[in-house]
Amino acid sequence: MTLRAIGLVHYPVLDRGGETVTTAITNLDLHDMSRSARTYGVEELYVVHPVAAQRLLAERIQSHWVSGSGKKRIPDRSLALELLRIVPGLDDVYAAIAGPAGRRGVSIWTTAASARSGPVTSYASARSLLQQAPLPVLILFGTGWGLAASIVEDADLRLEPIRGESDYNHLSVRAACAITLDRLLG
Amino acid sequence: MTLRAIGLVHYPVLDRGGETVTTAITNLDLHDMSRSARTYGVEELYVVHPVAAQRLLAERIQSHWVSGSGKKRIPDRSLALELLRIVPGLDDVYAAIAGPAGRRGVSIWTTAASARSGPVTSYASARSLLQQAPLPVLILFGTGWGLAASIVEDADLRLEPIRGESDYNHLSVRAACAITLDRLLG
Repeated sequence: MTLRAIGLVHYPVLDRGGETVTTAITNLDLHDMSRSARTYGVEELYVVHPVAAQRLLAERIQSHWVSGSGKKRIPDRSLALELLRIVPGLDDVYAAIAGPAGRRGVSIWTTAASARSGPVTSYASARSLLQQAPLPVLILFGTGWGLAASIVEDADLRLEPIRGESDYNHLSVRAACAITLDRLLG
Repeated sequence: MTLRAIGLVHYPVLDRGGETVTTAITNLDLHDMSRSARTYGVEELYVVHPVAAQRLLAERIQSHWVSGSGKKRIPDRSLALELLRIVPGLDDVYAAIAGPAGRRGVSIWTTAASARSGPVTSYASARSLLQQAPLPVLILFGTGWGLAASIVEDADLRLEPIRGESDYNHLSVRAACAITLDRLLG
């Protein structure tokens, strides 16, 4: 197995004060993360949002680029945005990937800007684990101030935070996703 | 020397058909690229735009986050956006970095999604060259369909295109910038 899918989670995620919240869809997240997924051979980008009106927004963005006038203007964008799967919750992601096995049929890896919930795995180790993974791997990215503890604690593997040459650890989720895929698959 | 600055060029860049055009400022470019620059210890992000009204837009975005109400809401964003330097042309970038020496005082490295203008340098080689560079290094990123040939031909080093596991080479400039900095400095 290799990396099957990535997921962008809008609930449950944290706000600046550590409270659990639902965030809004950001148009460029869908573009950038689907383009990065397509570049690195990831099969699907799951956009997880519990609010129907927000899912509808994401679906409209997708259809504009996959089958609407956007496709005519920038055909390459269609190949990226067709990787989008817009779902209400994480259970829908697991069912889509693993069928009736659900959560038990998926290896969940989480990303975070800081190590909050126990031990983390280096990218070097994760890169080789990915080649031998017995289950399809799903990497989850949090919007807002990151994935809620309930998701991180349920993970099968927690990737180490991405750090550069400074103490600043506030990459955008679009940048963090690109770096994560490049470190694991580039 | 190490990597001194990155530059986001809005003119001269290519459109889909290979014509030279001026592109519009994208708000999230400024956020994502300054956050990535801050993470990897890059000193400045030069935003190059020949149109005064577009530079004013970028300046207003910057002041909202560096000294306005944005700073109160998300203080971390201020540390990133204070790296922005908004200038009309590339000569202004060279003068800001190297003073009267201008272009001769800067080592210009270019990025591209495909190799169009002669030999390219691998990221592995570029990473070690960066440590020994005798001049401050400036890496340029193109908006639209990439930097015009005049810029690429004038470069001191051309970085190899970023490729993943597929033939798809349409990363966003925000994602390409994040990956470039991580490969050279991560």
